[in-house]
Amino acid sequence: MSGEQRAFYAVVPAGGSGTRLWPLSRKDEPKYLHALAGGDRSLLQATMDRLAPVTAGERMFVVTGAAHQPKVVAQLPELPPGNVLVEPAPKNSAPAIGLAAAVIAQRDPAAVMGSFAADHVVPRPEAFVSAVRDAIAVAEQGYLVTVGIAPTYAATGFGWIQRGAELPGGLGEHVAEFTEKPPAEVAERYLASGRSLWNASMFVWSVATFLDELCTQLPELHDGLRRIAKAWDTPQRSEVLGEVWPTLAAEAVDDGVLVGAAQRGRVAVVPGDFEWHDIGDWNGLADLLPGDAAGNVGLGTGERLSVDDSGTVVAAAGGRLVATLGLTDLVVVDTPDAVLVAPRSRAQEVRRLVEELTRRGDTAHL
Amino acid sequence: MSGEQRAFYAVVPAGGSGTRLWPLSRKDEPKYLHALAGGDRSLLQATMDRLAPVTAGERMFVVTGAAHQPKVVAQLPELPPGNVLVEPAPKNSAPAIGLAAAVIAQRDPAAVMGSFAADHVVPRPEAFVSAVRDAIAVAEQGYLVTVGIAPTYAATGFGWIQRGAELPGGLGEHVAEFTEKPPAEVAERYLASGRSLWNASMFVWSVATFLDELCTQLPELHDGLRRIAKAWDTPQRSEVLGEVWPTLAAEAVDDGVLVGAAQRGRVAVVPGDFEWHDIGDWNGLADLLPGDAAGNVGLGTGERLSVDDSGTVVAAAGGRLVATLGLTDLVVVDTPDAVLVAPRSRAQEVRRLVEELTRRGDTAHL
Repeated sequence: MSGEQRAFYAVVPAGGSGTRLWPLSRKDEPKYLHALAGGDRSLLQATMDRLAPVTAGERMFVVTGAAHQPKVVAQLPELPPGNVLVEPAPKNSAPAIGLAAAVIAQRDPAAVMGSFAADHVVPRPEAFVSAVRDAIAVAEQGYLVTVGIAPTYAATGFGWIQRGAELPGGLGEHVAEFTEKPPAEVAERYLASGRSLWNASMFVWSVATFLDELCTQLPELHDGLRRIAKAWDTPQRSEVLGEVWPTLAAEAVDDGVLVGAAQRGRVAVVPGDFEWHDIGDWNGLADLLPGDAAGNVGLGTGERLSVDDSGTVVAAAGGRLVATLGLTDLVVVDTPDAVLVAPRSRAQEVRRLVEELTRRGDTAHL
Repeated sequence: MSGEQRAFYAVVPAGGSGTRLWPLSRKDEPKYLHALAGGDRSLLQATMDRLAPVTAGERMFVVTGAAHQPKVVAQLPELPPGNVLVEPAPKNSAPAIGLAAAVIAQRDPAAVMGSFAADHVVPRPEAFVSAVRDAIAVAEQGYLVTVGIAPTYAATGFGWIQRGAELPGGLGEHVAEFTEKPPAEVAERYLASGRSLWNASMFVWSVATFLDELCTQLPELHDGLRRIAKAWDTPQRSEVLGEVWPTLAAEAVDDGVLVGAAQRGRVAVVPGDFEWHDIGDWNGLADLLPGDAAGNVGLGTGERLSVDDSGTVVAAAGGRLVATLGLTDLVVVDTPDAVLVAPRSRAQEVRRLVEELTRRGDTAHL
């Protein structure tokens, strides 16, 4: 590599629906559009804010679905409209991230890009920025780089990264292996080893390196994305997208690209020693937000009135007063057209309600 | 008394706010305006329906406040507009019932009237009608008559009536004594005695008898109400009401009239052997409505989705979906501008929320 600075592009794939955060999170208004981490910035906006120190707005991209595009654009008025890449249909992470890589490579073949989920929470972003800068430096050496989170407990809900040999330069290590969501006893072993990190789907690489790897492992996806990218900034975009996109394989970037690349020593990990949350459900959300003396957590801009509650989460997001009395460890969520009440201990089962609404054909509330 | 039939008038005082049934019951929309007993008839409408077998619509009266008049009129389109007597300000039951008595006496001096609260529930009205007919017959003998409810438990929340000597004719008995809400052990003794009935504030009397008694015990109130009644059907109504009403004493009809009259042997009781409920709070309401196999009670016209709940009351009265999961013995009330969640066991404390809103000056939600 030459010593000159290559431009860094930040890509934020914004997909998914988050049924366990229903009724706030909806098919047409997924969790990243909501200010779930408190304050008034949505998770998506906070993600973009967090990336501002490492790149300029004109090199930030969001990849999203057609249904969500208007809301994404409305939340990010400073983003150039051409930087919202719209997938005609959801196709998993390899096509989404690959689309961004190919479009960026078409415009700037020497680019380095990073991909960061739209719905994660990083309460203190300074260490995040520092890890991303390290990852960029490692990516410039030709590695596919992932930022691995220093684990704080034996999580069974995340994938893990096993650290390998240190890289020359000392900024990161080889990834020895990606491992799936482990059983509890395995997760305990990972945690105790000090050699395992959480996989937070934070990736940094030069677009050329990534597309080479894609070409090797998923050549049809690579070729399709290249074709689309070539047409992207021309009048043929719609036509080519409509023709090619439906033929693309719905692969995950982890399983489809990184696992194989790691086996050939091409993946590096930069440890990220910062607080990080992937909010899975209302209980997890409550754990991460500051509560009052009795452990009650409030969210939303609606009026709240709490008397004698403890450990209770109230999301007043329906513009109404939410009054609670004598509740213990409950979740109460008010939205304009639906109210949810459930114990925090059963927050994972909120998806059962969504399933039941689906069975009822109640699309208005999905 | 001569044998000819005297006309019977039914009077329904509709006041109070029912803060323990907040947020459905409001200052401007008290509980009697809501269909709390299930179905689609409000408690007020159901009260009028129940009285239809004993009198014609043109002899039915409602006494209410100015703030509630439009809603009362809207709910009772068949009631002649002149039969809604509007109090300029709330003044307790003696002025309210006395106003009706005086206005009716002005129009029909031989009238017999009955007074029945607007917010009580009588699930099977046949026995009620039969008791009222008996009460009318006893009232025609010159007694102030109360219908006493056969008690089903040792209630500490109601006043009780102690039965005295049987009346000639056998339809009723003298009231030996009115007793206040008793402590539990006294209530147990009342229940066991078989000689005590609940005071449900159901009164029947000839207007002449009542006004005579009022003249004896509360002469200023009597004179004021007679003055108002004389002006009622004239252009001077407003002027006289505005002048006299503020001077009237805010007495209760029980303490102010019946207690004293009973001491002089002028009050009779007719036992009412029918199911009767004075809904005090959400828990009491839940007890009286039919539930599903797990004891869940649903109310309101909004969509409900309940998974794995038990003993839980959901009032979906806000037009929104109310989804509940894994709840035990809770109350969830949704209204257009406020949501309440509380354990059934603390339903009495809902008034604490109303007090807190009052402190906040949050009149919109009161």
